[in-house]
Amino acid sequence: MSKTFEVIERVGISTEGISEAVKEIVLEANSEKKVGWFEVVEQRGRLTSDGKIEFQVKVRIGRKLKD
Amino acid sequence: MSKTFEVIERVGISTEGISEAVKEIVLEANSEKKVGWFEVVEQRGRLTSDGKIEFQVKVRIGRKLKD
Amino acid sequence: MSKTFEVIERVGISTEGISEAVKEIVLEANSEKKVGWFEVVEQRGRLTSDGKIEFQVKVRIGRKLKD
Amino acid sequence: MSKTFEVIERVGISTEGISEAVKEIVLEANSEKKVGWFEVVEQRGRLTSDGKIEFQVKVRIGRKLKD
Amino acid sequence: MSKTFEVIERVGISTEGISEAVKEIVLEANSEKKVGWFEVVEQRGRLTSDGKIEFQVKVRIGRKLKD
Amino acid sequence: MSKTFEVIERVGISTEGISEAVKEIVLEANSEKKVGWFEVVEQRGRLTSDGKIEFQVKVRIGRKLKD
Amino acid sequence: MSKTFEVIERVGISTEGISEAVKEIVLEANSEKKVGWFEVVEQRGRLTSDGKIEFQVKVRIGRKLKD
Amino acid sequence: MSKTFEVIERVGISTEGISEAVKEIVLEANSEKKVGWFEVVEQRGRLTSDGKIEFQVKVRIGRKLKD
Amino acid sequence: MSKTFEVIERVGISTEGISEAVKEIVLEANSEKKVGWFEVVEQRGRLTSDGKIEFQVKVRIGRKLKD
Amino acid sequence: MSKTFEVIERVGISTEGISEAVKEIVLEANSEKKVGWFEVVEQRGRLTSDGKIEFQVKVRIGRKLKD
Amino acid sequence: MSKTFEVIERVGISTEGISEAVKEIVLEANSEKKVGWFEVVEQRGRLTSDGKIEFQVKVRIGRKLKD
Amino acid sequence: MSKTFEVIERVGISTEGISEAVKEIVLEANSEKKVGWFEVVEQRGRLTSDGKIEFQVKVRIGRKLKD
Repeated sequence: MSKTFEVIERVGISTEGISEAVKEIVLEANSEKKVGWFEVVEQRGRLTSDGKIEFQVKVRIGRKLKD
Repeated sequence: MSKTFEVIERVGISTEGISEAVKEIVLEANSEKKVGWFEVVEQRGRLTSDGKIEFQVKVRIGRKLKD
Repeated sequence: MSKTFEVIERVGISTEGISEAVKEIVLEANSEKKVGWFEVVEQRGRLTSDGKIEFQVKVRIGRKLKD
Repeated sequence: MSKTFEVIERVGISTEGISEAVKEIVLEANSEKKVGWFEVVEQRGRLTSDGKIEFQVKVRIGRKLKD
Repeated sequence: MSKTFEVIERVGISTEGISEAVKEIVLEANSEKKVGWFEVVEQRGRLTSDGKIEFQVKVRIGRKLKD
Repeated sequence: MSKTFEVIERVGISTEGISEAVKEIVLEANSEKKVGWFEVVEQRGRLTSDGKIEFQVKVRIGRKLKD
Repeated sequence: MSKTFEVIERVGISTEGISEAVKEIVLEANSEKKVGWFEVVEQRGRLTSDGKIEFQVKVRIGRKLKD
Repeated sequence: MSKTFEVIERVGISTEGISEAVKEIVLEANSEKKVGWFEVVEQRGRLTSDGKIEFQVKVRIGRKLKD
Repeated sequence: MSKTFEVIERVGISTEGISEAVKEIVLEANSEKKVGWFEVVEQRGRLTSDGKIEFQVKVRIGRKLKD
Repeated sequence: MSKTFEVIERVGISTEGISEAVKEIVLEANSEKKVGWFEVVEQRGRLTSDGKIEFQVKVRIGRKLKD
Repeated sequence: MSKTFEVIERVGISTEGISEAVKEIVLEANSEKKVGWFEVVEQRGRLTSDGKIEFQVKVRIGRKLKD
Repeated sequence: MSKTFEVIERVGISTEGISEAVKEIVLEANSEKKVGWFEVVEQRGRLTSDGKIEFQVKVRIGRKLKD
């Protein structure tokens, strides 16, 4: 049985906060395949057209290659 | 017409949380001149004299040089 | 009188968010000895067995060597 | 609707120059699925057997997870 | 013919050593599609429940996009 | 006489290439005040709505504080 | 119950190899208090007076603050 | 009242030493507006035409945005 | 006999200069337990209330775990 | 037969562009001894006295120690 | 007598492991001139034509300038 | 005429201070061939057998390849 993990990189979006962007993206990745761990690697953002702060959080996600 | 952006660096303060410090600082910079994007580059802090955690979040902010 | 500071490294855990993990760990370190400042150096996490996001936040904490 | 982005990593090859290697790789990735943004992360290269400089440029490419 | 390479990220596990973890992960990736090169990017680990050191080695692997 | 230099950060835009984006931004900064040196610190970009690669190059520019 | 982890930094020595230096240092730290995880952060070395390669491997070790 | 800090970047010059270059640049910045803190980020230099070492020290300086 | 080294992190303070701050902190650490080596990892500072530059220099110090 | 490579560091100069500076420096190094590979590590520059952008590109070059 | 050290950069090759590549390269450098210390700075590799993992380990080597 | 620069790496030693170690090493390199510029890249040290702090400062030095 393979014990290898894949690491994928995703960017999550939230107007609430950094932690909310992380939660959303990790849960979505987990719905595809069970997430082992994650690492937050970048926190950027922009102002939306209606004046809200939008956080764009880059996360590396580790999952078993073959579940 | 110039398409150049300036990047300025600011540190925002909040006793609520990291995202709150970012929001405050980006909105303040936006009130001076329209913000294009931002990048969170450092998260530090201290304890206030009345025992609260104070977050000090360094943010780089990109804005059109000539709006 | 010595003016030297020690810097210790801790990892705090929270299922609420990154700022909550920082607050918990800095207040705990402060209960041992007065905290001068802190720096957030790593934000990782995992999914708990009941499907919650658990943030693991690494923080460097500066304290006077001799209080 | 998901607002998540995937970030993939590619290395493009060009004997013309760094910008040409970037253009080729981003356009190819865009032909598979619409590219949102890219970041140049490494610039290496070698000499080809007929004595030309070959640029090998590593690029991270962000695309909507579900277009 | 495309000359683009994809770069994927994997974590290999070994209780023998760092080089063994790299070998296992690169050979496994090669069995899927021919590996061009690899880069070791992180070396972590933990103690297993029976007291052995388990190395967890993160490796970036470059492969031709279309073999 | 002060010998201090200020360092400002700008992002230049070009659909031609990275070097072109640098040239544009450094010449523009020089038209305001004489440029001493520059350092390229980030190379990103996006696809324009008409399918061209747009390079966004971040440059730090050193200029005498008082010319 | 506290869920905080301490992170300590150690340098292990081995004339056999990098993995051996890591194993020695992690097992020694574990004999003091149960090790949660470790990260290899630096690999240096010197030649011993009798001409052997001596590896000096810096490792960060995470352990529960209160076991 | 705004609690935001601006961070500016300056390069100081001294033929005496690194600390002297830092002192000169921070005091000069303070004479414009009260300095909160500084960080040394780069130490370079050159030989002057009369054979002296000239230190060029890059410093980031934090000051209250509105004093 | 254990050949393991511990690495501790300290911040030294001096209004004279960076080297003076390093000397003070390394000698103080040596008075507790014999210092093997040190690495300067950060140089920051502030202005004291009477207008002097105060250097705050972070140093990692390696010492034999069991002297 | 030795399979060791030496890595040397050079800075190339060009008023045309970054790729041109790289090409010039790698071909010159190759005329001394066959170049195996190169890595671009820094891109700086200045304005020449006649107002042209001069790129200064730092490149690490790998060559067989004994050809 | 000069106390200056030179630092050279080499890449060692081994199909056995990372530590073996380091040993080979440091001993070879030592046969030219006495090695003071070394630092491992990069670990890459490729698959040989007969399917073996080849480690390519970049090492910085410090030696007295004048032995 | 070649405009290429070589970059060499040296470590200077001083018990006086960091700036003194830099001066010594740059002047020595200049006595061999005219130095264009230098960059301080690492500051370490040890305690000498008679209890003095010895600074070991790593410097990259740029010189015209052909003077």
